[in-house]
Amino acid sequence: MPRFRMTVEYDGTSYVGWQMQENGHSVQAALQNGILSLTGETVSVRGAGRTDSGVHARGQVIHADLTREWQPFKLRNALNAHLMMANERVSIIDVQQVSDDFDARFSAVKRHYLYRIISRPAPLAIEAGQAWWVPKELDHEAMHAAAQMLVGHHDFTTFRSTHCQAKSPVRTLDRLDVTRSGDLIEIRASAQSFLHNQIRSFAGTLKLAGEAKMSPDDVRRALEARDRKECGPVAPPEGLYFMKVDYPGDA
Amino acid sequence: MPRFRMTVEYDGTSYVGWQMQENGHSVQAALQNGILSLTGETVSVRGAGRTDSGVHARGQVIHADLTREWQPFKLRNALNAHLMMANERVSIIDVQQVSDDFDARFSAVKRHYLYRIISRPAPLAIEAGQAWWVPKELDHEAMHAAAQMLVGHHDFTTFRSTHCQAKSPVRTLDRLDVTRSGDLIEIRASAQSFLHNQIRSFAGTLKLAGEAKMSPDDVRRALEARDRKECGPVAPPEGLYFMKVDYPGDA
Repeated sequence: MPRFRMTVEYDGTSYVGWQMQENGHSVQAALQNGILSLTGETVSVRGAGRTDSGVHARGQVIHADLTREWQPFKLRNALNAHLMMANERVSIIDVQQVSDDFDARFSAVKRHYLYRIISRPAPLAIEAGQAWWVPKELDHEAMHAAAQMLVGHHDFTTFRSTHCQAKSPVRTLDRLDVTRSGDLIEIRASAQSFLHNQIRSFAGTLKLAGEAKMSPDDVRRALEARDRKECGPVAPPEGLYFMKVDYPGDA
Repeated sequence: MPRFRMTVEYDGTSYVGWQMQENGHSVQAALQNGILSLTGETVSVRGAGRTDSGVHARGQVIHADLTREWQPFKLRNALNAHLMMANERVSIIDVQQVSDDFDARFSAVKRHYLYRIISRPAPLAIEAGQAWWVPKELDHEAMHAAAQMLVGHHDFTTFRSTHCQAKSPVRTLDRLDVTRSGDLIEIRASAQSFLHNQIRSFAGTLKLAGEAKMSPDDVRRALEARDRKECGPVAPPEGLYFMKVDYPGDA
């Protein structure tokens, strides 16, 4: 059976999250329903990363095994037509046929996320649900300085959900950059893998650094405490975007 | 009575347009309801420009006369709180107290609009309703060249709605620029005033230029024909943003 790798964009607002759950509609179910509607096949799609309800993706990667051969662009267009008919906020950006040893989750060597904050006095009308609205002024340079305390190989117990199922809290954070363009503050995070709520925990903590409520040293001490109680409030899901996944051999 | 000038952002998707109408909820009504809820006053707010259903604004300007004095930032915050409570997709970006001779509509010396096209094979999941999705490839340089045929003082009969109520079809178009950044094509239009559907008529016609279905000379001939039938299909409302209004004395 041919295996297809797909790059997927979605607006997470109206979904219970990536993973199928009994309490509502998931992105995974939307994709599996789309494939069923297109091909008549009941397949299980695997994603490179789970995202929570409200979290968006511009470059989630999945794989799925289909019965018949497809020209990749025809599969993309046909599946998009079925997703649009079902009024899903899910779109297939790209399709490639891959070998059977490609696994969207286990082959991934790096994952890239973006967390968007809009810092201004007025609530968000156009971008409601697409960024975290912070009415206070934030010092993005202080946020960036604090973020550098988190880069590297660490025990991230402080910054993971108490529900996180990963066996180890140790991860290597390759990048945590904070930049600003007008009202928009962007936090870019890259690592081979992340813990549950790790980036939203970073974002909530860095916001405190932006308000001068935590210094870079405070953030370092919070990390070293390995204590969930030292984390700032977890930032809301609507600011988070799963942007890109790197695999061996990608250009 | 003190007069206040307000800069307003809105997502036009769920509104019948700027102007109050019997067939649904308008942005104007949302603002007037917000002021009523805040102050108990029934006021009429005047906008610098009417926008159709689905058209967005980042910088609509209105004026309203209130009974009591307000510190501008307090009025902004209080009115935003009432708009959020009512679940409106309308936000007050800025408030200034102005003299009685300021009129949001009649004092305006220039209006600036943006039309956003996203040109890519995949439908829009995140930006659905916030841009015109064009699956075909567009040559933005050809679009810009064609747009230059429209700049200047002309009879724009070809590019206005048959429902346009303006007495004269003659306008001076100061700017019509087409630029590209990745998948995003932006058309920026500036003039003292525009005719009904003028920018969406431009956008639909320029899209044909981007597909090489109209040359710059074809666009010039369409303008000179002063004939609505020579216009390309009117582009959909969701790509259009009312960005900014200039007034005498603004910095």
